[in-house]
Amino acid sequence: MPLEPGDKVLVYIDEKRRFVIVLEEDGILGTDKGYIKHSDIIGRDIGEAVYTSRGFKAYLLKPTISDYLHVFKRATQVIYPKDSSLMIYLSGIGPGSRVVEAGVGTGFLTLSLANIVGDNGRVYGYDIKKQNLEIARRNLELAGLGSRVELYHADIRSGVHQRNVDAVFLDMPDPWNALEAVYKALKPSAPILVYVPTINQVEKTVLAMRRTNCFIAVKAMETLVREYIVNEEATRPKTLMIGHTGYIIFGRKVIDPTCAYQ
Amino acid sequence: MPLEPGDKVLVYIDEKRRFVIVLEEDGILGTDKGYIKHSDIIGRDIGEAVYTSRGFKAYLLKPTISDYLHVFKRATQVIYPKDSSLMIYLSGIGPGSRVVEAGVGTGFLTLSLANIVGDNGRVYGYDIKKQNLEIARRNLELAGLGSRVELYHADIRSGVHQRNVDAVFLDMPDPWNALEAVYKALKPSAPILVYVPTINQVEKTVLAMRRTNCFIAVKAMETLVREYIVNEEATRPKTLMIGHTGYIIFGRKVIDPTCAYQ
Amino acid sequence: MPLEPGDKVLVYIDEKRRFVIVLEEDGILGTDKGYIKHSDIIGRDIGEAVYTSRGFKAYLLKPTISDYLHVFKRATQVIYPKDSSLMIYLSGIGPGSRVVEAGVGTGFLTLSLANIVGDNGRVYGYDIKKQNLEIARRNLELAGLGSRVELYHADIRSGVHQRNVDAVFLDMPDPWNALEAVYKALKPSAPILVYVPTINQVEKTVLAMRRTNCFIAVKAMETLVREYIVNEEATRPKTLMIGHTGYIIFGRKVIDPTCAYQ
Amino acid sequence: MPLEPGDKVLVYIDEKRRFVIVLEEDGILGTDKGYIKHSDIIGRDIGEAVYTSRGFKAYLLKPTISDYLHVFKRATQVIYPKDSSLMIYLSGIGPGSRVVEAGVGTGFLTLSLANIVGDNGRVYGYDIKKQNLEIARRNLELAGLGSRVELYHADIRSGVHQRNVDAVFLDMPDPWNALEAVYKALKPSAPILVYVPTINQVEKTVLAMRRTNCFIAVKAMETLVREYIVNEEATRPKTLMIGHTGYIIFGRKVIDPTCAYQ
Repeated sequence: MPLEPGDKVLVYIDEKRRFVIVLEEDGILGTDKGYIKHSDIIGRDIGEAVYTSRGFKAYLLKPTISDYLHVFKRATQVIYPKDSSLMIYLSGIGPGSRVVEAGVGTGFLTLSLANIVGDNGRVYGYDIKKQNLEIARRNLELAGLGSRVELYHADIRSGVHQRNVDAVFLDMPDPWNALEAVYKALKPSAPILVYVPTINQVEKTVLAMRRTNCFIAVKAMETLVREYIVNEEATRPKTLMIGHTGYIIFGRKVIDPTCAYQ
Repeated sequence: MPLEPGDKVLVYIDEKRRFVIVLEEDGILGTDKGYIKHSDIIGRDIGEAVYTSRGFKAYLLKPTISDYLHVFKRATQVIYPKDSSLMIYLSGIGPGSRVVEAGVGTGFLTLSLANIVGDNGRVYGYDIKKQNLEIARRNLELAGLGSRVELYHADIRSGVHQRNVDAVFLDMPDPWNALEAVYKALKPSAPILVYVPTINQVEKTVLAMRRTNCFIAVKAMETLVREYIVNEEATRPKTLMIGHTGYIIFGRKVIDPTCAYQ
Repeated sequence: MPLEPGDKVLVYIDEKRRFVIVLEEDGILGTDKGYIKHSDIIGRDIGEAVYTSRGFKAYLLKPTISDYLHVFKRATQVIYPKDSSLMIYLSGIGPGSRVVEAGVGTGFLTLSLANIVGDNGRVYGYDIKKQNLEIARRNLELAGLGSRVELYHADIRSGVHQRNVDAVFLDMPDPWNALEAVYKALKPSAPILVYVPTINQVEKTVLAMRRTNCFIAVKAMETLVREYIVNEEATRPKTLMIGHTGYIIFGRKVIDPTCAYQ
Repeated sequence: MPLEPGDKVLVYIDEKRRFVIVLEEDGILGTDKGYIKHSDIIGRDIGEAVYTSRGFKAYLLKPTISDYLHVFKRATQVIYPKDSSLMIYLSGIGPGSRVVEAGVGTGFLTLSLANIVGDNGRVYGYDIKKQNLEIARRNLELAGLGSRVELYHADIRSGVHQRNVDAVFLDMPDPWNALEAVYKALKPSAPILVYVPTINQVEKTVLAMRRTNCFIAVKAMETLVREYIVNEEATRPKTLMIGHTGYIIFGRKVIDPTCAYQ
């Protein structure tokens, strides 16, 4: 079916030039490789290409969550796909899951979570900064997944409204101060996933989790992704790589008589 | 609600000793840390612990897909979570997606895909070895996700039955020979994700994808995960790590007049 | 003993601002953090600090080979310390060793080799570009180690003048074409060390070495260095790292009746 | 010149089977691949091969420092080549250098240092365990470099005998307690190199070095080496790798009025 006004489309020129736009009859997309009139796009099919005013090829694609992340407004450090994808995997969540997230930041992880839980699931997002939540809300609407997410301007360290959730994701400076709230929100056996940038936060969080006797299978890790430049008879990794983003901590709620939060 | 006969439970003693069992009135779980009678588990709640005959604590957890992977029967090399999670993320799939996978192997990636696509989605799995498919079938049934997967004893290089799928995942020795079938199965703009163990396969696959003019945004990468040993004032990475599993290749189908498969 | 005109000194403001200068009565060192008159340095001791005209502290240090590398003129890709240091270690060379190097480039590895072999050793450097050799010569003179190095404007693939050398180091696009010359130059049991940027060159070189039956203990590897940002309670790796420079190949000459170069 | 009784030779069967022996008329080298009579080796040349009693080829090589490390007796954790080679490089030492090392352990780093400083240099090694020093002494004699090393059964934290040394290398649990002794031993501008296994020790050492105002250019890093399996059209990194050994810290002594040790 041909593209119509109101449709969202990813205009892809190259890896660094990707634009998610909403088609308008009179719209114009300006880029440093020339402009494209929306009217040149309307009527074409997803997968086809148009040309910019300067003759560069631009493919018309259906945006995935990964594409939205490239165009999202950022106000905070974000969790990279290499980390969020492993966190989601380790959480075991799927369609229908109910998950709590704090802090939401500008909604990068939130979007991935909303994508996975589907229309029957729910993401409950907390953040102490109102401005973050506003940006996150706009980002989620842009991606069309706003209806799966409830955002709270609240401090998770003071408690959460939800109970029996399938997973909790934390991206905050002092996750050890949120452990009691997390414990109360989680289903028995359900996982907590924490993301922190420094190794000192890893140590503090893991030691706190162990001390409570409320979590098992606690482990910490980091991920690295290395991209390759592929050419015939001349293949090698890229010269520069992201050497560090943050660490991931995993644990699972148990019901233990010695648990500090029982 | 207390555990009953017929329930699936993950018995977790430590990271190396995790067992997924189906509770039976007279069942016994034997481990090198002592045995546990199922009757000791029946009536307990998820999250609680029992003790083995030798006094080791064993927690009763709800198995996640990640836990099933630990207990799955393996007959082939498997795709590790660090790789499958990023592949799934990059694919952008979610609840309701229809995806093709070849080769299925013993179903590790298949299970993760089935978890994400949900009851309204579908995984179409191909493998040329009948024995693999039988093991995969049993593994998927064990995890309770068999109904989301259709398995085909067929060679994807000769074509696939599906059209307009949301993503294709390949784990086979010569992915470049399956590109035409993949192209025909994919929706325009939809992604192909390839996993190969050697750098030579990366080069061949990427060059083949480029030559066809049928895929864009082609890129290759590898992932590394590094686990940490956390102790008070003595935190450090583990001495041994997995230094290599395989490489991931990504690309997206486009409709181009010069595409070799148009 | 106080610094005098004619002395070489490393002026260190910070990691990005280090200057090796030769003191002159009327000299002035200009930097983006202000200038320093040489006369302010003359009479001070190594290890002390002076201030720039804008008030930035600048330490007066004795340049090491590592410092020279920061100030050397570069005309080519250079071998990084992480690689050259491991190559030198694996070569087993020390004071008095005689080594062959090709291509010399602008003399980065050459300088490290010259430092290790000492006044009783010798580095025989080959390069096919005259311009490289001129820059290398100037760099080596600057570091005061020129007398340990003989430079040849010649193609090592056509043979080398030396025999019975303790090690050969290659940094050239097609090391497999230099293997016969390397073999003839090396002492029995002595090592060859090769540096190449792509994995295809690794494969070609290693396979060629194996096929000749003239080298044993052949192995290939790569090194990575990750720098840390250390702060109280906030320690973590740097965000960006060098993800790739090149690969290192090692082998040892043996005397075998089946060796292709016997 | 043919091998004679009394000569040291490296018998190399494969990467895991390398033996440094001193030839004796009646000697026999036993291995799990068969035995070799020394009399079969005597009279052969370095670089040639003999066969074990079970028909495996064994090459006769001249041992390098790297080979000695494989046969050294170990009683402690050792510093790996990937780390010691970079530490030595960063130290800038060469023939004639005088260096202090603590703790010596079983002499792995000591041997590399002794190799580099040559006959005109000196390594002053400290350790608080007499047993370590005895093993280190034997290891160094085996490698023929004992005359370049003076070993002290003493605690470096209480001070060192040497002054004006060219570099200090520390491998001890609490390097921050040795900083004053290190400072007094070093020449102005000369470097300290520290090796520690945990990130907490990195933080403590770096912060202590900064606080003293006695060291500049302080930095911390870690190294990784990844080995490759090279086969025609099937090249890839090894599955398992050493994911962690230790961290390296570097700094340089300066003369500053605010230095705590002035």
